[in-house]
Amino acid sequence: MSGTSGPSGGAAFREFLAALVAPVEAELDRLLPAAGETPARLHEAMRYAVFAGGKRLRPALVALGARAAGGSAEEVLPAAAALEMIHTYSLVHDDLPALDDDDLRRGRPTVHRRYDEATAVLVGDALLTLGLTLLASEPAAVPAERRRAAVALVGRAIGTAGMIGGQAEDLEAERAWPADAAPALERIHRGKTAALIAAACELGALLAGAEAALRARLAAFGERLGLMFQIADDMLDVVGTTVNLGKTAGKDVRAHKLTYPALHGLERSRAELDRLRREASEVASGLPHLDGLPLSLIEFLARRDR
Amino acid sequence: MSGTSGPSGGAAFREFLAALVAPVEAELDRLLPAAGETPARLHEAMRYAVFAGGKRLRPALVALGARAAGGSAEEVLPAAAALEMIHTYSLVHDDLPALDDDDLRRGRPTVHRRYDEATAVLVGDALLTLGLTLLASEPAAVPAERRRAAVALVGRAIGTAGMIGGQAEDLEAERAWPADAAPALERIHRGKTAALIAAACELGALLAGAEAALRARLAAFGERLGLMFQIADDMLDVVGTTVNLGKTAGKDVRAHKLTYPALHGLERSRAELDRLRREASEVASGLPHLDGLPLSLIEFLARRDR
Repeated sequence: MSGTSGPSGGAAFREFLAALVAPVEAELDRLLPAAGETPARLHEAMRYAVFAGGKRLRPALVALGARAAGGSAEEVLPAAAALEMIHTYSLVHDDLPALDDDDLRRGRPTVHRRYDEATAVLVGDALLTLGLTLLASEPAAVPAERRRAAVALVGRAIGTAGMIGGQAEDLEAERAWPADAAPALERIHRGKTAALIAAACELGALLAGAEAALRARLAAFGERLGLMFQIADDMLDVVGTTVNLGKTAGKDVRAHKLTYPALHGLERSRAELDRLRREASEVASGLPHLDGLPLSLIEFLARRDR
Repeated sequence: MSGTSGPSGGAAFREFLAALVAPVEAELDRLLPAAGETPARLHEAMRYAVFAGGKRLRPALVALGARAAGGSAEEVLPAAAALEMIHTYSLVHDDLPALDDDDLRRGRPTVHRRYDEATAVLVGDALLTLGLTLLASEPAAVPAERRRAAVALVGRAIGTAGMIGGQAEDLEAERAWPADAAPALERIHRGKTAALIAAACELGALLAGAEAALRARLAAFGERLGLMFQIADDMLDVVGTTVNLGKTAGKDVRAHKLTYPALHGLERSRAELDRLRREASEVASGLPHLDGLPLSLIEFLARRDR
């Protein structure tokens, strides 16, 4: 990666992210049912899925969105945790044998490997249900209309026009690449990854009372981040190792997945990442209250392919 | 079944139910993504699952709840349709090979048999997501606080303290009946069936602006209906045929399921149905605006085992 890459490599965002890990973990612990509570095996498996050492990127984006609107991370913690539950649901279902059939996630057995398939289906269902329900209920200090709008915002992002739709097209493309592979790939990335990341950025601002224009700018910023994230992820599958990744490397190639490097090659993938980085930087320049955080975040994501 | 059973056999409720079928189907058609829209296969499968000739009992209960609060069925149609989507999601996931492994539902191949397992997982996810999201968005004329509360109400009912929890305990009991089989069975029935039926009754009243006392009475009424429904369903598996049921008969026995007739026998099952019928009738006597509809509904459900 060349261009605007500074020596920090996203240090400011890394710090922001690191400072949020403990409060987010505590909030997840508070909001998830206790592992001993009936049905104990299901509750234990939900916690196994959620407490797997994830970076908590999406909660951090909710906090960043709140800060851009003049709010604070603390004010939106329950919603940040809810979004992480929803993200985790998508991973648990994606890993199922009928879908991506993954044995490893973050270096540990996936939920259906550690428990069983039925439990993995129910864990995903339960995390999705709890996540959306929490958005309607918390934070209690936020006006009802905003909590209602939060459910609608996130629900749209993860529905068939967003995350689930992207996942469905991704699976279809695995059987046979579509004739219109380039625009299909674009839709898949927007749906399966960028939609939830954009919603995370917008959600924080919505809950903190932002106007429509600021919300739209955060969503646009988040979409570029999401597209960068997915291209970097596809590249890592090609150039990474199973040990580095904590999941099986080279799976996309073997599964004949429609990915950016598979369709366009690694060089064009890097160029597209650079282009998205410039776009994201432009959009970020209009975000208030965040100082250098957005640019540091862009740097953080752009360097994932190293 | 003896006792208060009139000659009508639930005719008034049957009429109420029949009058709602066309508006509910039209509402589902309006709210579901078009089958041709990308991702087309997923959208087509969602419609296959939803338009399978179901009785639309839960939407009718939403309408009944609204009427008890002085409202009308028309006012709550989107929420009624949302609840049917959520009910359908639970059937699609329950039928999966890793769970109940059913090939037939309402006399047709289940979603994973007609399409494939991955599609069935995503269809369930999509219907759950859309259902909860719609509750936050519609009906637009209902105040934001009630729509927010609707998501919270239904989300609780279908979470791990409700429907998903009941399903999880049901699966655990299939492996080995728990030592406390009778209370476990009670929890399973309350969770996997009664919670959503109770929420349906309460939801209509909530949206129509009912006070807490009326909402609680409708929820209590719905819970008895749900328990009756599940016991009757368990009995039908024993005494019914595959052709009558539209699903595989005798499956519970073969799967060593913890059911009311399996644990207590058919005679005690009938007695318990009668007891619940009396309880439901008592609760129903305090419901306003409904004339003989609740008693007719009780009759309708009690006769499902014939």
